[in-house]
Amino acid sequence: MADALDNLVIALQKLPGVGSKSASRMAYHLLQHDQAAAQQLAAALTQATDRMQHCQLCHTFTEQAICATCSDTQRDRSLLCVIESPADQAAMERTGVYRGLYFVLMGKLSPLSGIGPSDIGIERLLQRLDADHAHPVQELVIATSFTAEGEATAHVIGQLLKGRGIRVTRLSRGVPIGSELEYVDLGTIAHAFADRR
Amino acid sequence: MADALDNLVIALQKLPGVGSKSASRMAYHLLQHDQAAAQQLAAALTQATDRMQHCQLCHTFTEQAICATCSDTQRDRSLLCVIESPADQAAMERTGVYRGLYFVLMGKLSPLSGIGPSDIGIERLLQRLDADHAHPVQELVIATSFTAEGEATAHVIGQLLKGRGIRVTRLSRGVPIGSELEYVDLGTIAHAFADRR
Repeated sequence: MADALDNLVIALQKLPGVGSKSASRMAYHLLQHDQAAAQQLAAALTQATDRMQHCQLCHTFTEQAICATCSDTQRDRSLLCVIESPADQAAMERTGVYRGLYFVLMGKLSPLSGIGPSDIGIERLLQRLDADHAHPVQELVIATSFTAEGEATAHVIGQLLKGRGIRVTRLSRGVPIGSELEYVDLGTIAHAFADRR
Repeated sequence: MADALDNLVIALQKLPGVGSKSASRMAYHLLQHDQAAAQQLAAALTQATDRMQHCQLCHTFTEQAICATCSDTQRDRSLLCVIESPADQAAMERTGVYRGLYFVLMGKLSPLSGIGPSDIGIERLLQRLDADHAHPVQELVIATSFTAEGEATAHVIGQLLKGRGIRVTRLSRGVPIGSELEYVDLGTIAHAFADRR
């Protein structure tokens, strides 16, 4: 095997979830069947790394200083939803029920991987809360995942915001819509019972 | 979501086995955690599409006109092994028992996908057999996969070479080493019985 192909296989392995076998298969596929896709991907990678930056308010990826969501004057600026990633933001948007703004942490606390509060932008969140005096945030909806790490992140944020006069809420836990109780895990049922209404 | 990010997600979906969710995850990962990897991948893609070509003899990917294996004078030039892909060639090489040359089809017959003999280089294989008069090929080892498509490819090649005075062989089918008979599929056991020695 030649050098340029080896380099491509090594570079493809940097993608999350791609091991050496998948990387080889991708490299052979691109060279043999789809060189146009390879050139398109190279251009898209260069363009994205050159142009994408973090929104100064919500920290998501954007080509502008302030992203389209944060610039939208139709949105309720008193509501701020804290999520872990742009993918989670997209999921919230698809529900169509949320009309406030977002703050994207870009990660969650993970002490085992050495990811502490400063790595996931909790300080930027505090700055964000002070940023817009004309439209102060009145409620912070914490929508981090319901995993140990997501719960820890939610807890830390909740602690930091105590005494600021901001209402801090969390998405409700419970049985997913469409599930039969028999197949739902016991922890979820227990939480759904405790949070019954 | 902004344009450069959308473009990157679309381009990543051209990779085999990558859907829209994986592509988003890859794009966010590269932008957030590993911009160096994104730049490395862009450079590797450009370099590979610019430099890689097909070996004039065996048709594998190489940066030279003739690949390192075909140029190796230590190899037995009377033996030619036909495989489907460079990955299969790498597997054969790892066994360490084969010292002949290769011919890489770059695919297999697949009538349902519209892939016929000319698409997988069977004509190039015939030209290859006539290419080296100083060292004529005496045995052709067909090592295409033991799937319906691989078997059909092997059959077509076998038919085309009839009357050329070249011995045509196929890798033996049978029970894989280390398997318990109980867990081997019945077709394999039946073949292993028919080919017993």
